[in-house]
Amino acid sequence: MRNNYIKIYETERKKVNKILSQALKGRKPVSLYEPGAYILNSGGKRLRPLLVLLSAKAVGGSFKNAYNAAAAVEMLHNFTLVHDDIMDNADKRRGRLTLHKKYDHNTAILAGDSLLSVAYEYLLKDCIGSAKDLISAFTHGLIEVCEGQSMDTDFESRKNVSLSEYIIMIEKKTAAMAEMCCRIGALLGGGSKDQVTALGNYGLNLGIAFQIQDDLLDISADEKKFGKTIGGDLVEGKKTFLFLEALEKSKGEDRRRLLKVIERKGIRSNQILIYKQLYEKLGVLDDARNAIRHYTNKALKSLKLLGKEKREIFVWLADSLINRTS
Amino acid sequence: MRNNYIKIYETERKKVNKILSQALKGRKPVSLYEPGAYILNSGGKRLRPLLVLLSAKAVGGSFKNAYNAAAAVEMLHNFTLVHDDIMDNADKRRGRLTLHKKYDHNTAILAGDSLLSVAYEYLLKDCIGSAKDLISAFTHGLIEVCEGQSMDTDFESRKNVSLSEYIIMIEKKTAAMAEMCCRIGALLGGGSKDQVTALGNYGLNLGIAFQIQDDLLDISADEKKFGKTIGGDLVEGKKTFLFLEALEKSKGEDRRRLLKVIERKGIRSNQILIYKQLYEKLGVLDDARNAIRHYTNKALKSLKLLGKEKREIFVWLADSLINRTS
Repeated sequence: MRNNYIKIYETERKKVNKILSQALKGRKPVSLYEPGAYILNSGGKRLRPLLVLLSAKAVGGSFKNAYNAAAAVEMLHNFTLVHDDIMDNADKRRGRLTLHKKYDHNTAILAGDSLLSVAYEYLLKDCIGSAKDLISAFTHGLIEVCEGQSMDTDFESRKNVSLSEYIIMIEKKTAAMAEMCCRIGALLGGGSKDQVTALGNYGLNLGIAFQIQDDLLDISADEKKFGKTIGGDLVEGKKTFLFLEALEKSKGEDRRRLLKVIERKGIRSNQILIYKQLYEKLGVLDDARNAIRHYTNKALKSLKLLGKEKREIFVWLADSLINRTS
Repeated sequence: MRNNYIKIYETERKKVNKILSQALKGRKPVSLYEPGAYILNSGGKRLRPLLVLLSAKAVGGSFKNAYNAAAAVEMLHNFTLVHDDIMDNADKRRGRLTLHKKYDHNTAILAGDSLLSVAYEYLLKDCIGSAKDLISAFTHGLIEVCEGQSMDTDFESRKNVSLSEYIIMIEKKTAAMAEMCCRIGALLGGGSKDQVTALGNYGLNLGIAFQIQDDLLDISADEKKFGKTIGGDLVEGKKTFLFLEALEKSKGEDRRRLLKVIERKGIRSNQILIYKQLYEKLGVLDDARNAIRHYTNKALKSLKLLGKEKREIFVWLADSLINRTS
């Protein structure tokens, strides 16, 4: 079964990649669409399109009526990546130069805007009948991701971020998009209101689990498989799930050391091991694993109404994400 | 009649302003929506919302079913202003600091994105039944404005821009948005396909006339009424209608002087008068006036199917725009 799912994933990823690689071809001006194509064709897991397609099928629809919408959510995702990379002044993305480094800031702002515009165009291609629910879900996802990014930026300069605020932030910045993918897939598949909600909740909770897993991998991954330096979040002083959980649990000297990370906006690379040991002492790696399990279970529970057979591929997907190494 | 139209405009502008001032209130995070409100509440002619409302009424609909869409097009417009001002590194907008100067670059990128997201939200509020045509028209306007902005940026570094390329650029950057406003108004008003097309053509041609008028005012306006320094486009080396027309008509020494503006990316303030005299000698001020008349007539002709009475307010609007002093 597992091999079968991997095969489905690989096949569909290729199809989505093909649509994405065609989407901006021949459009003018080249100065706008070539940068857009640069980011769209830079690889990526294509998990969001997969959520759209699986959700459509889960409610009795078929993949073929949702490919354009699948491409649309990936374009929306790439729009956020391009603008986020400018804001974070990031140099690399998927092993290549970020768009604003390859081209320039202005090109990146506009190429991002344009990806969003073409995303709506592609979403509309798959609309049959009333488009309102579909566009509303998509737009809601866009609003949430803007709000989440803004909260994330706020957190950088704030000293008193709570874990529950952090969960709200990742719900908006990461999970709302996964929720939206599942909702629009289910809508395109002709799902009932309950099915749309159920799949949406799956996406939402899976998205939260995914982000906490991201935070966990940053400190606990096998460096070779991870492809990035371990402990990067601590070096950058990021307020991750692990960091905020550690802060809430710690006292005295431990707390003082954690607060130093905030004050100094990060640590030196040679301090990573010390902080990892502090995390272990405080038990926050286990807390993260428990939280990931909690949200994953919540995601899967919401899919009960699909029945065992249709649920299986979603179980596989959740397992794959929990057990990923990068 | 004229006074009556001005009264309608003033009344509706106030209503639109009220919706806009309410639209982002109470939303969180404040760091995202306060900058958005800053630009939304900074005044402006609100011509685009007016086009939406008038078009809705022209086809038998009413203002009240199109206010949210009217607010939506203004939000979309402000999204483009915020991002354009970053790209142009502009300091002032509507007499106030631009958003990225008042806050910072990252805030402005994200506040712009967020205005666009809320624009779609507002557009959807006015959707009854199938939203597809409405959202498609809106999205097409967004795509065009991105393409127009990209062409405009290209033109800055290109030395051989033709007048016809310029017309295509302003069609996309300015006129496509006016076209979209009229189309969505007509759609919301329940207009026939012919009515939607006719009003769209009105908006498109009015938009082109408006932009050429903008270029003309920059060199020929009464400085006191204009509110800006005369000749700013020449100082900045902008490739306007007037400049490109002059370049196409000129020979020998005149042409050499114009090419210098491109090479040096602008002129000094004390040279403005010399270039204005060159424009007059080449007759390009009259050419601009003729072009404005041409596009305005085209705009009005397309409205023949509305009948004389319904057409009147659109005639008034076109006249007001042609005769504006700022």
